[in-house]
Amino acid sequence: MTDVSMNAKKSEHMVVVGAGLVGSLWALMLAQRGHRVDVYERRPDPRTGSVKGGRSINLALSDRGWRALEKAGIAQKVRQIALPIEGRLMHAQDGALTFQRYGLPEATGLHGDPQCIYSVSRANLNRLLVEAAEAHAGVEFHFGHKCADVDLSKNVLELESPEGSSVLVQYDRLFGTDGAFSAVRNRLTRTDRFDFEQRYLEHGYKEVAMQPDALGAFKMQKDALHIWPRGEFMLMALPNPDGTFTCTLFAPYAGANGLDQLVDPADALVYFEKNFPDILPLIPDLTAQWATNPVSSLVMTRCYPWHHGDNVCLMGDAAHAIVPFYGQGMNSGMEDCSILSELLDKMNSPQDWDQTLSAYTAARKPAGDAILELALRNYIEMRDKTGDPQFLLQKRIEAKLAKTFPGRWLPLYSQVTFSHTPYQEALAAGVLHDRVMAEILAKPDIEETWDSDAVAESAMNALEHIQKSA
Amino acid sequence: MTDVSMNAKKSEHMVVVGAGLVGSLWALMLAQRGHRVDVYERRPDPRTGSVKGGRSINLALSDRGWRALEKAGIAQKVRQIALPIEGRLMHAQDGALTFQRYGLPEATGLHGDPQCIYSVSRANLNRLLVEAAEAHAGVEFHFGHKCADVDLSKNVLELESPEGSSVLVQYDRLFGTDGAFSAVRNRLTRTDRFDFEQRYLEHGYKEVAMQPDALGAFKMQKDALHIWPRGEFMLMALPNPDGTFTCTLFAPYAGANGLDQLVDPADALVYFEKNFPDILPLIPDLTAQWATNPVSSLVMTRCYPWHHGDNVCLMGDAAHAIVPFYGQGMNSGMEDCSILSELLDKMNSPQDWDQTLSAYTAARKPAGDAILELALRNYIEMRDKTGDPQFLLQKRIEAKLAKTFPGRWLPLYSQVTFSHTPYQEALAAGVLHDRVMAEILAKPDIEETWDSDAVAESAMNALEHIQKSA
Repeated sequence: MTDVSMNAKKSEHMVVVGAGLVGSLWALMLAQRGHRVDVYERRPDPRTGSVKGGRSINLALSDRGWRALEKAGIAQKVRQIALPIEGRLMHAQDGALTFQRYGLPEATGLHGDPQCIYSVSRANLNRLLVEAAEAHAGVEFHFGHKCADVDLSKNVLELESPEGSSVLVQYDRLFGTDGAFSAVRNRLTRTDRFDFEQRYLEHGYKEVAMQPDALGAFKMQKDALHIWPRGEFMLMALPNPDGTFTCTLFAPYAGANGLDQLVDPADALVYFEKNFPDILPLIPDLTAQWATNPVSSLVMTRCYPWHHGDNVCLMGDAAHAIVPFYGQGMNSGMEDCSILSELLDKMNSPQDWDQTLSAYTAARKPAGDAILELALRNYIEMRDKTGDPQFLLQKRIEAKLAKTFPGRWLPLYSQVTFSHTPYQEALAAGVLHDRVMAEILAKPDIEETWDSDAVAESAMNALEHIQKSA
Repeated sequence: MTDVSMNAKKSEHMVVVGAGLVGSLWALMLAQRGHRVDVYERRPDPRTGSVKGGRSINLALSDRGWRALEKAGIAQKVRQIALPIEGRLMHAQDGALTFQRYGLPEATGLHGDPQCIYSVSRANLNRLLVEAAEAHAGVEFHFGHKCADVDLSKNVLELESPEGSSVLVQYDRLFGTDGAFSAVRNRLTRTDRFDFEQRYLEHGYKEVAMQPDALGAFKMQKDALHIWPRGEFMLMALPNPDGTFTCTLFAPYAGANGLDQLVDPADALVYFEKNFPDILPLIPDLTAQWATNPVSSLVMTRCYPWHHGDNVCLMGDAAHAIVPFYGQGMNSGMEDCSILSELLDKMNSPQDWDQTLSAYTAARKPAGDAILELALRNYIEMRDKTGDPQFLLQKRIEAKLAKTFPGRWLPLYSQVTFSHTPYQEALAAGVLHDRVMAEILAKPDIEETWDSDAVAESAMNALEHIQKSA
């Protein structure tokens, strides 16, 4: 037995492909376990050049992400570059504003803040994570290295160096954290009985930046995610810590309101005048940006299993790329890290990698499928329902229920954003909540009585009735 | 206008990747249109070595396949190597036999035969098609050439020659007929907004051969596809023109009846003794074959679109790999050829390839999705329902309806196998038929009255009622 427990501490050569948010965090966590870690990344070092390429430049960190950052001991550092966002601010066609808090009013959030989400710059967070990992003994980053293939039978990663020469790297374990178009996963799709799907949304997006005012201050309310819900399309604006907003139009490619109609910046100007008149004066260089910035597509991927044998594992977008509408892409990838790390904590013998990776797939695959589904539904919610008084009333009733029955009615948004409940359980609870709320909202006098204890009790009774009969 | 119609006859350099059944047929059809055609195939020439590798060795040709072969002028040649199969013969656990005719009793089939399907050897048919294409001026086959990549911007196919050197081929149009794991399609999956899915059935299969008797004759009824339906698994036997039967066990990998339990040939013997006692004496070398033959998996693929711009097109399994249970994998691939050929017949100008390929995707994608669904359903039908008296009664009633109301009630199997109705329309009709038959089979005295005119009329009325209210 002594041998086994000594082996359990054995240092291995871990190879991570992809130095994005998930890859650099995972490299740090592996190093903290005492392993030697090499990270290979196709792009140049994010600390030298300007890294872009059609990717969203800010992201929303929420509890699942923070938990992984806590486990890696860098949450406090990240908090310093993160901007709290306390709710959604809806901009109606006539300019009327409606604020809807994300958190429950009396709940305590992280870092002594109210319950909220945090805007971070992807590039800044990536740099911080790379530096934190690189500062750890035994971690080395290799930028400009493209994964060419993986020899799964010999445990050899084949790379192309920045000079174009071939580099072979022997690994003990290989982690594919190389995003939605993962080369590691592409190798696994050529193994027997590996399921894979990539599906594009028939909607795309285009980003434009809103600069701060002359004094360097935010031009709009800075602790809110702004939404202009317009039915089949929407504009969104998320503040960055530097005083700018990243504004994103999400719309179908085809049709009267489609991106295909907006190739000419002059057409985009007319579209903004018509649909988002209040933001137009705040982005004076809209047409110039429109002419330059690309239209980007939105891909979703699913695969199964998320591992191969006892030594290859997919994490983050490489295993489960989703649409961005729940702000959970990065958070779910970081949750992969904390959950795999917890499974490794429980592993007694280095012989158990096979079981551990199987347990990881078993735990995370249903979660990945559920957050993909939730993110798709949230697009419809954001672009269509957040402008609907019935929907806003439902949110108010749910907040009241959460307050009246703590722990017994946790709204779906809270479960996804402020809890560690597996996504598939949150999704299932959300379906039940919707059934109950359909009943409650059908009451003829609901607009007057919604705040009453009688309505709250009738909702809770209905929920318990459904739960019992299920 | 003269220029345009002259251009329409312009010979182009057509490159086909994959010299399987669809690729070699399509090469022939392209050559018949006056084009120069080069066909590149990863495997060696099927006329020299033994071509195998876990693929089913016989296949069932039905009307959709014949139509394409007719259009290419080689149906008569193929008929000479094809064996008519007139129906299913079900083997019950106790050895009882039930025959169920595929065609409608009075319908006339092809080639002067009764309405039936035709067993062909994959290898023989492939050789025949390659020879027919190669005999045509302007067609050249290049075996042992592996597709390495496609440069979509320069219209260049990159191949690896049998000697391992790189070969670049400029194409006017490129056709990917390279099967379920198509390299051409893999290149398209890396283009923006290309959807792709590969999914494995949780069931696999293993083939064993039954040799002819001492006189060279078939050991079982030769004009039938034999089925041993056993619920979640089944054995199937399809005769070959040479007197052998190809016997295939389809079963889940996992579970009590699963292939994972049958690795040891001795366990397979016990399994056959228990489940298929009547066939065991006919395959005396079962355990020897079991030890040698591989277990193969069953993959399905879907993608969208089936073309790229005006010069790349996917056909056959490269676009839509399905499970084999409806005998439509090859037939649907050949139907791709006849339908694309018909679209090209209608094309007036060589500038219209873009439109023609879009029309091909629009016509064939719903058909591919439908036959995938139909093939999955037919697995359940074959392994589970063909042993069920209710199901057999339904088939008898449907045959009666087809006879009583010609053209108004064509059973699903007939629509798929003996018609050119688009698969998606056949699937939709099948759903309606099942609704009607559920009503009819629920009649308390149906086992006595099924053959009456009253029952037939009530079924037809129910169908028309559903069709009207839809």
